[in-house]
Amino acid sequence: MDAAKIKQLRDMTSAGMLDCKKALEEAGGDLEKAAEILRKKGIAKAVKKMGREAAEGGIFAYIHHNNKLGVLLELNCETDFVARNEKFQELGKNIAMHIAASNPQYIKAEDVPEDVIEKEKALQRENLIAEGKPEDKLDKILEGKIRKFLSEITLLGQPYVKEPKMTVEDLIKESITTLGENISVKRFTRYEI
Amino acid sequence: MDAAKIKQLRDMTSAGMLDCKKALEEAGGDLEKAAEILRKKGIAKAVKKMGREAAEGGIFAYIHHNNKLGVLLELNCETDFVARNEKFQELGKNIAMHIAASNPQYIKAEDVPEDVIEKEKALQRENLIAEGKPEDKLDKILEGKIRKFLSEITLLGQPYVKEPKMTVEDLIKESITTLGENISVKRFTRYEI
Repeated sequence: MDAAKIKQLRDMTSAGMLDCKKALEEAGGDLEKAAEILRKKGIAKAVKKMGREAAEGGIFAYIHHNNKLGVLLELNCETDFVARNEKFQELGKNIAMHIAASNPQYIKAEDVPEDVIEKEKALQRENLIAEGKPEDKLDKILEGKIRKFLSEITLLGQPYVKEPKMTVEDLIKESITTLGENISVKRFTRYEI
Repeated sequence: MDAAKIKQLRDMTSAGMLDCKKALEEAGGDLEKAAEILRKKGIAKAVKKMGREAAEGGIFAYIHHNNKLGVLLELNCETDFVARNEKFQELGKNIAMHIAASNPQYIKAEDVPEDVIEKEKALQRENLIAEGKPEDKLDKILEGKIRKFLSEITLLGQPYVKEPKMTVEDLIKESITTLGENISVKRFTRYEI
């Protein structure tokens, strides 16, 4: 396998030498395909790491320039070594900034109280009936509406404000892959005057 | 009255020309006494202002240098003009820093739940009885102990970390006098890893 190509793939993905070599072989030398293979493997690894305890980390603050809006965030990782890493610091600042901009109400879908979901469901059902949607399709449509609602009000489900093609969850998974440790948002507070 | 003395008093207290003149007359020309008179009048004015609505203000954050400790604070005043004043900004930063250092549990004594006070009272009563304090003096001693307890766990009652001779409440009153508007702490959050 071409050493220059391996180097190029390393530069693209920050993956290890051996992983790059394997991915290039698997992709028959196609750089883009190899990068995609590595990305998928990285996410698979990230998902595995997401079960691990994360009790270290950092506290991050973001104050909007007009001083009328502020966020405090606790972001956890597994070791103080990663907590002091520049990329982890950057991630913390970016998530705090995202929270200021996008005003999530909860961290993840499981944190949303059942009655909040039921209330939204009832409201959406009324709307759909008013629109004349057929009764037998309501549940299916509602399911999608609720999924959308949850992604709008939860930090992890929201489109990341700096790169709306990915969610904040994707952003965190990416950092788990890069930094090699579980990373999770423990809590946040947002004040606005 | 000596104009140089009036100027000197103004420099000491930042009070108005006329107030300085009056205070010096009242103090028979004694600078220290005149400053004390102005200080007392200032506090009286501050107390009057403390009833006024304060819906403007700023959000302040303090992150300890090790990134393991952070505070978010909403400090209110009456106008955006004062909110943008450098002294108000400084006050906000100092209070946030104080909260990081002194870890208050509540803003003021009235915010402490009755059961927290009762629990502390019961504990202190037991201690006093164990120490053999006479039964008829317990209530009197307890009163003092609870006052101390409340000042330890409330932001306004705590000795200000940068100048422990004054409380945070004194610090805020001083700023009310200087800035001429009611100033109050609306809420704070403190995260520690």
